[in-house]
Amino acid sequence: MASMLLSRHVSQAMQQNSRLLVPCISVRLQPNKKNVDFEFEAPLMKTEVPGPRSRELIKQLNGIQNADAVHFFCNYEESRGNYLVDVDGNRMLDLYSQISSIPIGYNHPALIKILQQPQNLSTFINRPALGILPPENFTEKLEQSLLSVGPKGMSQIMTMSCGSCSNENAFKLIFMWYRNKERGNSRITKEELESCMVNQFPGCPDYSILSFMGGFHGRTMGCLATTHSKAIHKLDIPSFDWPIAPFPRLKYPLENFVRENQDEEARCLEEVEDLIVKYRKKKKTVAGIVVEPIQSEGGDNHASDDFFRKLRTIARKHGCAFLVDEVQTGGGATGKFWAHEHWGMDDPADVVSFSKKMMTGGFYHKEELRPDAPYRIFNTWLGDPSKTLLLAEVLNVIKREDLLSNAVQAGKVLLDGLLDFQSRYPHLVSRARGRGTFCSFDTPNDAARTKLIATARNKGVVLGGSGDRSIRFRPTLVFKEHHAHLFLNIFNDILADFK
Amino acid sequence: MASMLLSRHVSQAMQQNSRLLVPCISVRLQPNKKNVDFEFEAPLMKTEVPGPRSRELIKQLNGIQNADAVHFFCNYEESRGNYLVDVDGNRMLDLYSQISSIPIGYNHPALIKILQQPQNLSTFINRPALGILPPENFTEKLEQSLLSVGPKGMSQIMTMSCGSCSNENAFKLIFMWYRNKERGNSRITKEELESCMVNQFPGCPDYSILSFMGGFHGRTMGCLATTHSKAIHKLDIPSFDWPIAPFPRLKYPLENFVRENQDEEARCLEEVEDLIVKYRKKKKTVAGIVVEPIQSEGGDNHASDDFFRKLRTIARKHGCAFLVDEVQTGGGATGKFWAHEHWGMDDPADVVSFSKKMMTGGFYHKEELRPDAPYRIFNTWLGDPSKTLLLAEVLNVIKREDLLSNAVQAGKVLLDGLLDFQSRYPHLVSRARGRGTFCSFDTPNDAARTKLIATARNKGVVLGGSGDRSIRFRPTLVFKEHHAHLFLNIFNDILADFK
Repeated sequence: MASMLLSRHVSQAMQQNSRLLVPCISVRLQPNKKNVDFEFEAPLMKTEVPGPRSRELIKQLNGIQNADAVHFFCNYEESRGNYLVDVDGNRMLDLYSQISSIPIGYNHPALIKILQQPQNLSTFINRPALGILPPENFTEKLEQSLLSVGPKGMSQIMTMSCGSCSNENAFKLIFMWYRNKERGNSRITKEELESCMVNQFPGCPDYSILSFMGGFHGRTMGCLATTHSKAIHKLDIPSFDWPIAPFPRLKYPLENFVRENQDEEARCLEEVEDLIVKYRKKKKTVAGIVVEPIQSEGGDNHASDDFFRKLRTIARKHGCAFLVDEVQTGGGATGKFWAHEHWGMDDPADVVSFSKKMMTGGFYHKEELRPDAPYRIFNTWLGDPSKTLLLAEVLNVIKREDLLSNAVQAGKVLLDGLLDFQSRYPHLVSRARGRGTFCSFDTPNDAARTKLIATARNKGVVLGGSGDRSIRFRPTLVFKEHHAHLFLNIFNDILADFK
Repeated sequence: MASMLLSRHVSQAMQQNSRLLVPCISVRLQPNKKNVDFEFEAPLMKTEVPGPRSRELIKQLNGIQNADAVHFFCNYEESRGNYLVDVDGNRMLDLYSQISSIPIGYNHPALIKILQQPQNLSTFINRPALGILPPENFTEKLEQSLLSVGPKGMSQIMTMSCGSCSNENAFKLIFMWYRNKERGNSRITKEELESCMVNQFPGCPDYSILSFMGGFHGRTMGCLATTHSKAIHKLDIPSFDWPIAPFPRLKYPLENFVRENQDEEARCLEEVEDLIVKYRKKKKTVAGIVVEPIQSEGGDNHASDDFFRKLRTIARKHGCAFLVDEVQTGGGATGKFWAHEHWGMDDPADVVSFSKKMMTGGFYHKEELRPDAPYRIFNTWLGDPSKTLLLAEVLNVIKREDLLSNAVQAGKVLLDGLLDFQSRYPHLVSRARGRGTFCSFDTPNDAARTKLIATARNKGVVLGGSGDRSIRFRPTLVFKEHHAHLFLNIFNDILADFK
């Protein structure tokens, strides 16, 4: 299907730019080369994956930690753009991009340049305690980076080191805000100050965060109490009795199940309200609701924009903070910088957390939730200015190269291709769905999925799974239409041959 | 007192090496200069601190986040060695080193060199998902860095992004290990797999971690349940009902209170055993005990080596994992690489966590605690190879320059000086204590402490507090005897003039 498109594109590219074929080392030596010029033209496979060198390294690593999750070892120096090179010399088109965390491809020349500027060296080797001793350009770099893409209505920003810490601290912010609301004008009591030191009420109130079945918000113990995607994440870890609402399980194709899906969303929203009431009665008041715009780890579960608008309204009605977790969805892959922008709201959230493609963790929030004292949201590092420095340049590239529009265009090619597969290979591909390049489809079962992913890898395409049977697409933002055609072409052959 | 020593040292240094006075820019241009040559000779103050530029920047930052904790803004590019330069051109001797997180001083030439090597660039801009796609040199770099200084008996290592995540995951490792012990040969049940998804028993067992009053283990919700140093960290945040034992409150000088202190430690240990029994009966079984070798945030509270040996024995006796939190004490400042080495044990711990001076978070553990399946201890990044790369070089410098011996020597000068202050200014300085440069003393109260720290800062010395009235010393590992003399000289004048 896609093979004609692909060969046309590749030959065009080769005519336009013979530098596509320069050896890898040139990335390092020619940091000023334009983005479009620095990539490979196609996958190139030399061994099965993992190859012999990877297998040797996996065995070695396994001596010092459980290495059973390792797919293969990588040669990051040789990787570039959408192509991940492994230690056996295999070059793969990467549609998983380090669990969705590489924003503009490997070894982007613009980022190499940042590293090579002498005035930036100090930022990489002197990591400050940002909360007490920030660098001179701290506010300026936040304005150039995170604040330049801040969600509507959120003037406040905190940086953190990873996604879990971002959500943990967003929860804390919400609890403090809620308690201050309840406290009203009365002062903090001696009893509160003393009881909190020994983990007891009233200093440690029995508040809760409402989350959704299938959601993923991280793996530290606060986050984990709101994560419900896979048992392996949660088994054997003590948790909190916090409310868990069902997340809509939409039927596809959407246009054939309009009524059913509306009913399903209404059922879930009703359950949210019931839980808020029930947990308030149980004295485990819901201080906040946390939700992903697309349940990304739990199976690429989508709900309608209308569902989220109504959910946001329910949060407001019951006085719960609304935390939108954009750790995986944020950064542009859905075609808007934040996935919640698709909801088209003026007041979409109270707190928005991020990490992954943003290179640093953190969260935005409304001024109303601002901590009333220093050291309440605090830790030693509070992020890392070297990541914010890189992010500022990533955002420049995104704007300069209009990568949000690109995500829409490349995503359309990708999703159209998946829909085509779905009609031609319905026994293998179903529920094709997505926004921008943030696409996915369902396989018949986990065994078929595992085999499809392994086969694709050996044909030079890196894919990842989500939920119990989905394959998720999480390419970088420099994934272009021709990469989509290239993938579709390869995967079409795999589906045609699949036994 | 120390002024003669200081002036002698400074004049010696100036005779020996005129390069001490080179302008700051030379650090960048001459990365090969020897460590001893790259520093300033003394503090140099131009304004009060925070100065006008810092105040302006604090106001600006305060628009986007609560900036009340900011001491001043820094010029990291101009800082070097033990000297932190602020944005108003003030140059201060830094005895706090970013809350104890700068290992070998600012802008160390060896680290600049790492940044300048072309083969390292890729590591700084392509952050991998280490658990699935590690770089070729991953195991090698771990061996050169973290494993080269691994605690006794611990062959296994996991890296994390910060101290809180390290302890959170260490707790999880302990819970999994404990549950597997209890499970014995029986398999994981369907009920466990289903109940854990909704945060309920038996999938989420009601295990606990025993911690100590005054301890600090981080601020994410699992860690926070074991942190008991200040109310501001814990107020308004839901927590777990986990056991909290008293930590010995030793009387100083130790030699005058041998009997009392032994009794105090025995009392605390007895309480630990009582709590283990009590919480087992409450069905909140203690799966692990977490303790700092020196309670670092909670007031520099020390206990004898004998106390820790007995505590470790109690943990073993009751089948609880013993987690030693070396986030602040680890990395060499106590004169040994790990503070727990002072206990002189062959089997000091089951898990040792670290961060701060180690540049990356993580934990070591015994093979017995190794996760039995992939993805159980996991997150997107699992640390950052660029930090491990820097750490490998930091460890080279520590070995090459024998910085552990240096910590002993410089620490002796520092502590002797504090003991001298204690005898001469007993109304201001008491309970002088410490190991290596990891020293502290008590001030009469928080108000006096605040004033002493502010006065010292305006005289060119950065200090930090711990607990409710202590001042803690947390210099870098390149803090030498002459820096100690310099500090003592300045602080002597402050104490003499203090009103």
